Amino acid sequence: MTDITNIDDLPIRDELKGKSPYGAPQLHVPVLLNTNENPYSLPDDLVARIAERVAEAARNLNRYPDRDAVELRTRLAAYLTGSTGHAVTKEQVWAANGSNEIIQQLMQTFGGSGRTALGFSPTYQMHDLISRGTGTRWIEGPRNEDFTIDEDAAVAALVAERPDVLFLCSPNNPTGTALARGAVERLYDAAQSVKPTLVIVDEAYVEFSHQPSLLSLLDGRPLMVVTRTMSKAFGAAGLRLGYFAATPAVVDAVQLVRLPYHLSAVTQATALAALDFTDVLLGYVEKLKSERDRIVTELRTMGLEVTDSDANFVQFGRFQNTRAVWQAILDQGVLVRDNGVPGRLRVTAGTPAENDAFLDAVRTAIKEL
Amino acid sequence: MTDITNIDDLPIRDELKGKSPYGAPQLHVPVLLNTNENPYSLPDDLVARIAERVAEAARNLNRYPDRDAVELRTRLAAYLTGSTGHAVTKEQVWAANGSNEIIQQLMQTFGGSGRTALGFSPTYQMHDLISRGTGTRWIEGPRNEDFTIDEDAAVAALVAERPDVLFLCSPNNPTGTALARGAVERLYDAAQSVKPTLVIVDEAYVEFSHQPSLLSLLDGRPLMVVTRTMSKAFGAAGLRLGYFAATPAVVDAVQLVRLPYHLSAVTQATALAALDFTDVLLGYVEKLKSERDRIVTELRTMGLEVTDSDANFVQFGRFQNTRAVWQAILDQGVLVRDNGVPGRLRVTAGTPAENDAFLDAVRTAIKEL
Repeated sequence: MTDITNIDDLPIRDELKGKSPYGAPQLHVPVLLNTNENPYSLPDDLVARIAERVAEAARNLNRYPDRDAVELRTRLAAYLTGSTGHAVTKEQVWAANGSNEIIQQLMQTFGGSGRTALGFSPTYQMHDLISRGTGTRWIEGPRNEDFTIDEDAAVAALVAERPDVLFLCSPNNPTGTALARGAVERLYDAAQSVKPTLVIVDEAYVEFSHQPSLLSLLDGRPLMVVTRTMSKAFGAAGLRLGYFAATPAVVDAVQLVRLPYHLSAVTQATALAALDFTDVLLGYVEKLKSERDRIVTELRTMGLEVTDSDANFVQFGRFQNTRAVWQAILDQGVLVRDNGVPGRLRVTAGTPAENDAFLDAVRTAIKEL
Repeated sequence: MTDITNIDDLPIRDELKGKSPYGAPQLHVPVLLNTNENPYSLPDDLVARIAERVAEAARNLNRYPDRDAVELRTRLAAYLTGSTGHAVTKEQVWAANGSNEIIQQLMQTFGGSGRTALGFSPTYQMHDLISRGTGTRWIEGPRNEDFTIDEDAAVAALVAERPDVLFLCSPNNPTGTALARGAVERLYDAAQSVKPTLVIVDEAYVEFSHQPSLLSLLDGRPLMVVTRTMSKAFGAAGLRLGYFAATPAVVDAVQLVRLPYHLSAVTQATALAALDFTDVLLGYVEKLKSERDRIVTELRTMGLEVTDSDANFVQFGRFQNTRAVWQAILDQGVLVRDNGVPGRLRVTAGTPAENDAFLDAVRTAIKEL
């Protein structure tokens, strides 16, 4: 037992054996358009406000943070109410370290060993990974050729698989595809008609959508949860602040599995400062939406097949040798993402100059290959 | 399904039904000695350093943080090396949001459904709760009347129960009891002789101990993990920064379950600033150790039964009506903790003035009751 030099020598769980950690390759190139980050640095006055708020919190850093993050949840509820027109209270909102931790808490409560989750792939890979990480069986439902969800096939999958948790990602990552309101209503009802099913609507990218948020569907749907993040629209991927809205009983339920004091005082202080600058940050979102639309148009002009996008990224193809195209773009200093969708790559909408560099790189790449 | 007003109406996991969330009651009284917080606020120059480091990080908050927290792990390794004299590298160190998340990641990797963890109660309740939260069966081993571990009984429990994970908490919370080095060596060997067993030595309070850290036991013991926190000795409970040291393969293994980018850029920046002030912060630890020893002596002078303590808290009793004593102390403005250990209460070492207030309150309480 003293010769343990790699993971396989350790008594780890069988299902982890031979796996690799999740995460995009982190390369140092001039233009990073691979992880759907917001390209705009925080404005100076917001940086100053963060420093001020954090200094205030740091004075009492010897004390545990507010375990229930009441001020932050109140402000997030106000943001959701203001931005969607659908009234949400702090009792309906819960926050954690990134929407990944939000999803993990939900899966520890409603999934786990002996339970099943259904999602429609290709979709956000962490739905699958967190399901498995919590012992939940993961089932992949089908998508149409254009990456929309085939509602009839989805209903059939719900009836056949009887999942405990249903993941709906809208706009969907990595395809950018938004779900129609009517489709969500139908799938929610279909799921509940089989058995009580938690329906997680992942709206990480909804601020970039052409369509309004699905938040108002929470009314009369007590097993629906809408998850959000400050990573994208608020330009705060480094902050790790995810949250969800649902009926208050769901917020109460995740208290049974959340680690006590999971959300640090500096995280809470920084998130509150960012929320003070909501209007400024959502101004960047408008710029990014129009850049996203420009990328779609220009890629199509090049004759490429581009998936309609409601997010801050664009899926494009098709390529016979996806890896070669990815590399050819990288060789010109632009990093995009190969999510493993056959024949497709994904690019994040950056600044206008970054997007120009990307579009030039694609033009060169498809000419060469 | 539209009438869901409380947790029991939801399709949560069976084992969560009827449970309550973990966490000490948060009351507003003048003297808070219930959650083992460090009573000393951070010094002004450290607060300024935190604001500076966080402002730097906030400028690029639109980008994801360093997923592997390399700078922070390097500094934590240097701290462990410097404070224990046992050399540890960054490849041996991993950090997360509090030692709770550290333990959760370890249990997701080495515990989980179909696996078993053994601990010696009374001990840190989160060992039990996180084990259950990850689907791991939790088994309570025995302690002696004086809260030390009966080594023969412990070895017998290891043979009988064949756990996958063994928790050793030293100094133990809530009793304050440290484990002798020889006992840890013996229990590690006994566990491995039955089957490969991860041995988690929880040293959250070790900086307050009369005994040196057990860190050097990592040599030649590849299935030992030593967990630590910045919450106590570094006076940073609000920061939520836990870490562990082990053989590098164990660090590699938890990468398979850690949520990507789990540790925010502001958390990393704040922790780095606190590490810049290690000497100042460890100066407070010396004061607290001598206050802890004073509390033990004075409580014994009052004729109370006091458990030997190597932590920043003291367990005392015995009381016939523990709840009444707790309330009588609270009535005088001092909050201590009832951890459910029959006949005992636990008090955190505070500032000299806070400890005086506590000791006066106990004198009054035992006179009255």
